[in-house]
Amino acid sequence: MASPVGKKLTGLVAATFTPLTPEGEINLPVIGLYIDYLLEHQGVRNVFVNGTTGEGMSLSVEERKKLAEEWCGKGKGKLEQVIVHVGCMSLKDSQDLARHAAEAGADGIAAVSPSVFKPSDAGVLRQFLQEVAAAAPDLPFYYYHIPALTGVSLLARDVLDGIEKQIPSFRGLKFSGGDLLDFGQCVSYCPSDWSVLYGVDEQLLAGLAMGANGAVGSTYNYLGSRARSLLTAFETGDLTQARTLQFQVQDVISYAVKLGFDVAVNKRLMSEVSGLDLGPPSAPEALPPPPGRLHRAEAPRGRPAGPVPCQNPKRDG
Amino acid sequence: MASPVGKKLTGLVAATFTPLTPEGEINLPVIGLYIDYLLEHQGVRNVFVNGTTGEGMSLSVEERKKLAEEWCGKGKGKLEQVIVHVGCMSLKDSQDLARHAAEAGADGIAAVSPSVFKPSDAGVLRQFLQEVAAAAPDLPFYYYHIPALTGVSLLARDVLDGIEKQIPSFRGLKFSGGDLLDFGQCVSYCPSDWSVLYGVDEQLLAGLAMGANGAVGSTYNYLGSRARSLLTAFETGDLTQARTLQFQVQDVISYAVKLGFDVAVNKRLMSEVSGLDLGPPSAPEALPPPPGRLHRAEAPRGRPAGPVPCQNPKRDG
Amino acid sequence: MASPVGKKLTGLVAATFTPLTPEGEINLPVIGLYIDYLLEHQGVRNVFVNGTTGEGMSLSVEERKKLAEEWCGKGKGKLEQVIVHVGCMSLKDSQDLARHAAEAGADGIAAVSPSVFKPSDAGVLRQFLQEVAAAAPDLPFYYYHIPALTGVSLLARDVLDGIEKQIPSFRGLKFSGGDLLDFGQCVSYCPSDWSVLYGVDEQLLAGLAMGANGAVGSTYNYLGSRARSLLTAFETGDLTQARTLQFQVQDVISYAVKLGFDVAVNKRLMSEVSGLDLGPPSAPEALPPPPGRLHRAEAPRGRPAGPVPCQNPKRDG
Amino acid sequence: MASPVGKKLTGLVAATFTPLTPEGEINLPVIGLYIDYLLEHQGVRNVFVNGTTGEGMSLSVEERKKLAEEWCGKGKGKLEQVIVHVGCMSLKDSQDLARHAAEAGADGIAAVSPSVFKPSDAGVLRQFLQEVAAAAPDLPFYYYHIPALTGVSLLARDVLDGIEKQIPSFRGLKFSGGDLLDFGQCVSYCPSDWSVLYGVDEQLLAGLAMGANGAVGSTYNYLGSRARSLLTAFETGDLTQARTLQFQVQDVISYAVKLGFDVAVNKRLMSEVSGLDLGPPSAPEALPPPPGRLHRAEAPRGRPAGPVPCQNPKRDG
Repeated sequence: MASPVGKKLTGLVAATFTPLTPEGEINLPVIGLYIDYLLEHQGVRNVFVNGTTGEGMSLSVEERKKLAEEWCGKGKGKLEQVIVHVGCMSLKDSQDLARHAAEAGADGIAAVSPSVFKPSDAGVLRQFLQEVAAAAPDLPFYYYHIPALTGVSLLARDVLDGIEKQIPSFRGLKFSGGDLLDFGQCVSYCPSDWSVLYGVDEQLLAGLAMGANGAVGSTYNYLGSRARSLLTAFETGDLTQARTLQFQVQDVISYAVKLGFDVAVNKRLMSEVSGLDLGPPSAPEALPPPPGRLHRAEAPRGRPAGPVPCQNPKRDG
Repeated sequence: MASPVGKKLTGLVAATFTPLTPEGEINLPVIGLYIDYLLEHQGVRNVFVNGTTGEGMSLSVEERKKLAEEWCGKGKGKLEQVIVHVGCMSLKDSQDLARHAAEAGADGIAAVSPSVFKPSDAGVLRQFLQEVAAAAPDLPFYYYHIPALTGVSLLARDVLDGIEKQIPSFRGLKFSGGDLLDFGQCVSYCPSDWSVLYGVDEQLLAGLAMGANGAVGSTYNYLGSRARSLLTAFETGDLTQARTLQFQVQDVISYAVKLGFDVAVNKRLMSEVSGLDLGPPSAPEALPPPPGRLHRAEAPRGRPAGPVPCQNPKRDG
Repeated sequence: MASPVGKKLTGLVAATFTPLTPEGEINLPVIGLYIDYLLEHQGVRNVFVNGTTGEGMSLSVEERKKLAEEWCGKGKGKLEQVIVHVGCMSLKDSQDLARHAAEAGADGIAAVSPSVFKPSDAGVLRQFLQEVAAAAPDLPFYYYHIPALTGVSLLARDVLDGIEKQIPSFRGLKFSGGDLLDFGQCVSYCPSDWSVLYGVDEQLLAGLAMGANGAVGSTYNYLGSRARSLLTAFETGDLTQARTLQFQVQDVISYAVKLGFDVAVNKRLMSEVSGLDLGPPSAPEALPPPPGRLHRAEAPRGRPAGPVPCQNPKRDG
Repeated sequence: MASPVGKKLTGLVAATFTPLTPEGEINLPVIGLYIDYLLEHQGVRNVFVNGTTGEGMSLSVEERKKLAEEWCGKGKGKLEQVIVHVGCMSLKDSQDLARHAAEAGADGIAAVSPSVFKPSDAGVLRQFLQEVAAAAPDLPFYYYHIPALTGVSLLARDVLDGIEKQIPSFRGLKFSGGDLLDFGQCVSYCPSDWSVLYGVDEQLLAGLAMGANGAVGSTYNYLGSRARSLLTAFETGDLTQARTLQFQVQDVISYAVKLGFDVAVNKRLMSEVSGLDLGPPSAPEALPPPPGRLHRAEAPRGRPAGPVPCQNPKRDG
């Protein structure tokens, strides 16, 4: 369903969790239900699969392929766009995943910088991205910028420099960082048909003010409805309302950060909020705090007594 | 002229440079001219003296006192507010400077966290600020938060917690950092008569969107006029124009960052833009690049041929 | 040839490079020659395969298996011990590689901490290591500690705590870090039949003084002979001679660091020193400086005119 | 008593604490007793005054002068060398302190890099040191390298480059860092009549192995006797005994680090061990844990039941 001349990716994109069985095997049957939940309860119509939230880098290549197939297959005719993240430490694996995403019917692919061996300059990283994108030349390609996770301190603006010549299918980036000088320079650089998606959910409003035309994040799995209201308030010029909504989101995230949030906790919360059985994280992690603590902490803020949405801002996307 | 019930500090505040003679002595006679320049050419009516831009921490206590006297004396009846930064490594020195600022007629004082011996938690820092503020209890007191410079990673929101009980004269903070979750939480916490001033000039628009009611920075010495236009555009709801102005500022700062900007360069540029003779920095620094290079670099961007405004975003404030 | 009751791993261990063809495919036929070179020219009889120097984390699982098979097969009867590094981002892949190493006849396996999703405490990491080790319970297992590369700041001593109960096959660690308080505490903790191998080549002498009983590093591929002399001098109590040799090694590494060394350069140098055709690195990297520059730079130090051995201390192991 | 042709500084140097009254005023009468304690109970005959341990950077210039006078005056004829640290954020203040140290009869002066405005390269820092040293040209001058505290990441070896031409009175450095490549390069560079003093107490043995000819640290105030035994064991070639002693020191420091040690705790411990009344730290700090906890923790290790020596390795010197 996708091609580089496809529809521009805008608005909210949920960075999806990966459902696992209690034994740690990928749990494909949950995905169809997951898609229905996003559409019906959160109003979110785009997904970013096998990214940081989806623990893509902790899964085997085979697992990632099966997940991509399921999301593309079940999402067909329902979701607007399924973006498959194909970045990993090995260039060959990334290319393999890119080719597979094209076959599976993805609407676009994205890749993060390798982080064990860090590229020494922006040109080196751009070349890596080029070799990945070239494995699926008919799919829109997005660069996934998340320096706090990768430890790669290159400016996104430097990575973009001339990238349209090296990667004809380049269509934008997911910027998960707090350097809004760099972000603003990216906004200035990008032509209007590229997507500039902001990825730090707790300061989405700042990203919008600086020119983002969409957002990718893990909280949009369970706070998608509220984030859509924020987007609408911003678009209609009601900054006061947008700020009120942003501060509500911040209250949740700020509390979550103090709990030392990681994928394990984030995933459990999504399970609670959605009623979906997402299972444990893919790798050993410290036991998350019992959900009761989260409920209690929320109470004084006067929010409804339902399940509590939270997020790890260090791992958003 | 000041008291804790004085006028709320809002809008633009120039973090002033310290004029020196070629021999490195403070050059007091320049200050009167400097004030006139800010008022007449930049439309800036508030100053933040002896802060980071003013190299306060590199000056002796005596030098800082003379500077504070001159700014307060010459600014009287002209400037709206003169905020004197009194933070230094020694608590006794900071208290001495606070008492002196009151005598000199300052409209407020501010203090940064000590950075050689870093406070181990927010309560320790709050106690330090309390002991400084108590030396000038009739002056509005502001906390100056600049974690990248001090290396103190405490959240500003945690420092604010209950600070109104410990420091009756507390009136707000200058937030020079990129963590807008922390910043937003500060905005939420502060009562409406406190000042929440943002201090990262290159992303002022993001700070405004998140609720800042003013800004302190070094670029407002020479880009004050443009920044005022940005503020006006934001206040009138013209985000597109605000963003255009912000991107113009970013172009200058982004270029400056690539030159490895520091106080020496920043100061030389202010000298060029303003025609004031600000002299060298107070401590040995690498020789700044010849100004000609800066002029040339600006040319292709099509800006007017006048002097070139630049700034070091790492040292703004 | 291996079992947990096998011979204790001591002395020098070369962290091997991975030979590639110009097209970037693994070049297995070089490995037999490589083994002969290590034995005959450097006197090194132990290897650490698919580690950081070998770019293990940038290779696909299949490539790593083929490399392990070749090193174990060709090394049989020649090398004393072949340790196969099986750590990667995916637990399943690591377990797969551990099982394979046992089948391939490795003398031991090692694993680094996952670094995209960092373990939140030492217990979480220990559990990850346990699940890897359990996939090859008859092979000696080593923890590979390299915090500067992984960004995991856990103390090695905390990871070791009680590890013998969780991992019966545990036999020691490769410590590639500069925190010699942590290192000393590890030395104190380890029983005498475990191996405590130091991994920062440029300060091997410090590691020995603190109690290391061996060393793993990339420079031992081409500086092995000199490092063996250093070990001998230390063991015979001739600290002055050991220091002289250490300083010679430091001169080379210090120079290399200034060139911004990475695997690409390191690999090219090994190619030059050894005459083996190791090829390019496995992922795009900045072009290394022409070797001529390295030769010239060395000249003033009066070393022989032969090829120049260098190393990247950030990636040693 | 001092001159640049004076006796080379070697062996143990105690980085002294600053005695304060409960009200936070400097408590000069304690210093005479302090000197007697160091000589009689620890066998330490050299001191480093107003450094990090002494909280020099938190004291006013006047306080530092009085302290220097007292140490020099009371130490005369008793101590071998009194080195006065004169580094502070202000060049003028540092020069003032240097001149004063000469008048007070110090045997040498030392200075750390300014850390609020960090020197942009080694030449800039060298020029700063030159201007400080020139204020007391007849006193041996030492560079105090402590990158973890200052955040200045320049290599000490680069700072030393050609320093003997710029600073005729230069006589060595105190190296408080873990980069033993840099340290080894300094050892190689320094002529035999310079002092190369290592400043990380928990890995003193590594520093000695790499060529240190002395040590400066806070633990030598209360662990001086044991550290002298370590030095003796090392000098007589008994590395096993030296390592045993080093590990004993590490046990104490490792425990202390887990308590989150800072000057407050370190100072209280020295008070307990020595019986001297050193008072609180000079600035607000978190309350130290009750000493009882420290005593208990020590007990199982079988050390004598006396007061417990501890240290903050992040602040040694």
